[in-house]
Amino acid sequence: MKAGTAILEAFYQAAGQFVQNDELARLLKVPPTRVNAEIADLEKLGYTIESHPHFGYRLLDTPDRLTADDIKPQLKTRIIGSEILVFDETASTNDVVEHLAKSGAREGLVVFAESQTKGRGRHGRAWASPRGKGLWFSVLLRPAVPPAAASRITVAASVAVARAIRQACRVDARIKWPNDVVLNGRKVAGILTELRAEADEILLAILGIGIDVNCAREDFPPEIAKMATSLQIETGHEQDRVALAARVLAALDDCYRAALADFEAIADEWAELGTTLGRQIVVTMARRRIEGFAHALDGDGALLVRKDDGQIERVLGGDLVVER
Amino acid sequence: MKAGTAILEAFYQAAGQFVQNDELARLLKVPPTRVNAEIADLEKLGYTIESHPHFGYRLLDTPDRLTADDIKPQLKTRIIGSEILVFDETASTNDVVEHLAKSGAREGLVVFAESQTKGRGRHGRAWASPRGKGLWFSVLLRPAVPPAAASRITVAASVAVARAIRQACRVDARIKWPNDVVLNGRKVAGILTELRAEADEILLAILGIGIDVNCAREDFPPEIAKMATSLQIETGHEQDRVALAARVLAALDDCYRAALADFEAIADEWAELGTTLGRQIVVTMARRRIEGFAHALDGDGALLVRKDDGQIERVLGGDLVVER
Repeated sequence: MKAGTAILEAFYQAAGQFVQNDELARLLKVPPTRVNAEIADLEKLGYTIESHPHFGYRLLDTPDRLTADDIKPQLKTRIIGSEILVFDETASTNDVVEHLAKSGAREGLVVFAESQTKGRGRHGRAWASPRGKGLWFSVLLRPAVPPAAASRITVAASVAVARAIRQACRVDARIKWPNDVVLNGRKVAGILTELRAEADEILLAILGIGIDVNCAREDFPPEIAKMATSLQIETGHEQDRVALAARVLAALDDCYRAALADFEAIADEWAELGTTLGRQIVVTMARRRIEGFAHALDGDGALLVRKDDGQIERVLGGDLVVER
Repeated sequence: MKAGTAILEAFYQAAGQFVQNDELARLLKVPPTRVNAEIADLEKLGYTIESHPHFGYRLLDTPDRLTADDIKPQLKTRIIGSEILVFDETASTNDVVEHLAKSGAREGLVVFAESQTKGRGRHGRAWASPRGKGLWFSVLLRPAVPPAAASRITVAASVAVARAIRQACRVDARIKWPNDVVLNGRKVAGILTELRAEADEILLAILGIGIDVNCAREDFPPEIAKMATSLQIETGHEQDRVALAARVLAALDDCYRAALADFEAIADEWAELGTTLGRQIVVTMARRRIEGFAHALDGDGALLVRKDDGQIERVLGGDLVVER
């Protein structure tokens, strides 16, 4: 382990308290007189560290930069975050995960990028990923369920993102079916589930998640500016991306495992956080359009829509409009 | 178009009849005196061509080698075979198709290989692909259906392969759920359906098909020798791989389009050709085992099994044993 990684781990474990010089020296396996130089290296990377002649060192602030060293010590997950990689720039984090999956990467691998040049949403739509302004990341999953159950993963991820945002920012994050998290009716996060499968089993699922954290209004492309918002815009102040990343991954670990074991609990939380159920809706798909009453989620994560003729239709995806 | 391609196309259109020297010259846009040299080139490639001073030329026999030039003129398909590529050797034709799909290849692309070094069956099992002995190929499909309907594609392909073998070889080819074609209880062909999908839509499906055409008993690896057979073993003589390839692609074009438009017709043919329905069966899956009565296929291509307690279970895949 690099010295900086070990020091940061000790700081995160101390949760804002001081860590003695001697203890850091022991962790780093260096003489106590060397610790100061390692601390100076971290300060050069942008960390703000207080030093005290008796109590040692404590972490006051982290640079606004995602690093596995900052996220990992804050995680206590079973599956998600088994490995965390942060790229400065990639075409699409989903593509990076797919590439690593082919070389046998473990379930739970998470790949972040500070910016994406070809970020994408559902059905190949472009996703803007301005540098350093959001959380743009993908997670490798290997759920042992048939392809028909893939929507469960999208549902679990929506619940996880909404839950983490609610906790971190104290805002009323809501889920708009099928894959958006919204604040005051504007989209703040999107989720894309991509699969590789055989007819009877998902070989791997790649969950792509984009959260507009500290985007300013001018960061959004004009065509989505009216529908999009960010946590900074809604709360009025900059949010800690590292802390939010850790919260989202922890929630995802919880929701993903729940969605495979007992989907009903997740479907209930989804229903509570959702803006969709119990409303008159219109869903537009590539080839058709369904109008009706959003009745419930079924066990595979599909939306059950009761049409005017009384028939119930299962809908897996599409663009949703809620009629007022 | 190459001269050889144009001549072969004319020969296949003539269906065994002579084609005049002048007509070939016109097709090739060369003086009539040049035709002889082009014919000689084809003979060097292994084609047997009869020449007649008055009637011209006719094709008597083709080399035992797959070429797009031989398959294409025999095809009258709408989707399958929009492009045909033949490789001498690849790791896996499914991987080649996936690679080409990423660069935007059209639906219906077919990739054959004379041999595969890493051919695979369901769930990563090895598939033996001895050089020149079979049809080892993959087809790119872009069906606009949800991932749950992927089994329909496997069903359509099974029907197409069984139908083509029955027509070409006059044998009683049968379908063993979920993905095998059998002759006298032994496997003669296998089908693998691989998907790339989002939660609500298949982006592309790659259908991998392996048919043991002219394999001898010693071509099979010892662990499958007892369960496997070939068309040559069952019929007692070598089969024309090019003609069979054209028949399979034609049947696939028909069955694939039918499976998307009116699955019931395909399910009916599947039921007639199947060895599974109406029998007491055991299906072994990665994590469990189901025993019961094979009742029917549902609209998504899943097998409905009536268990002893009367409950109906949908099964998408697994290893099947029919109890006698």
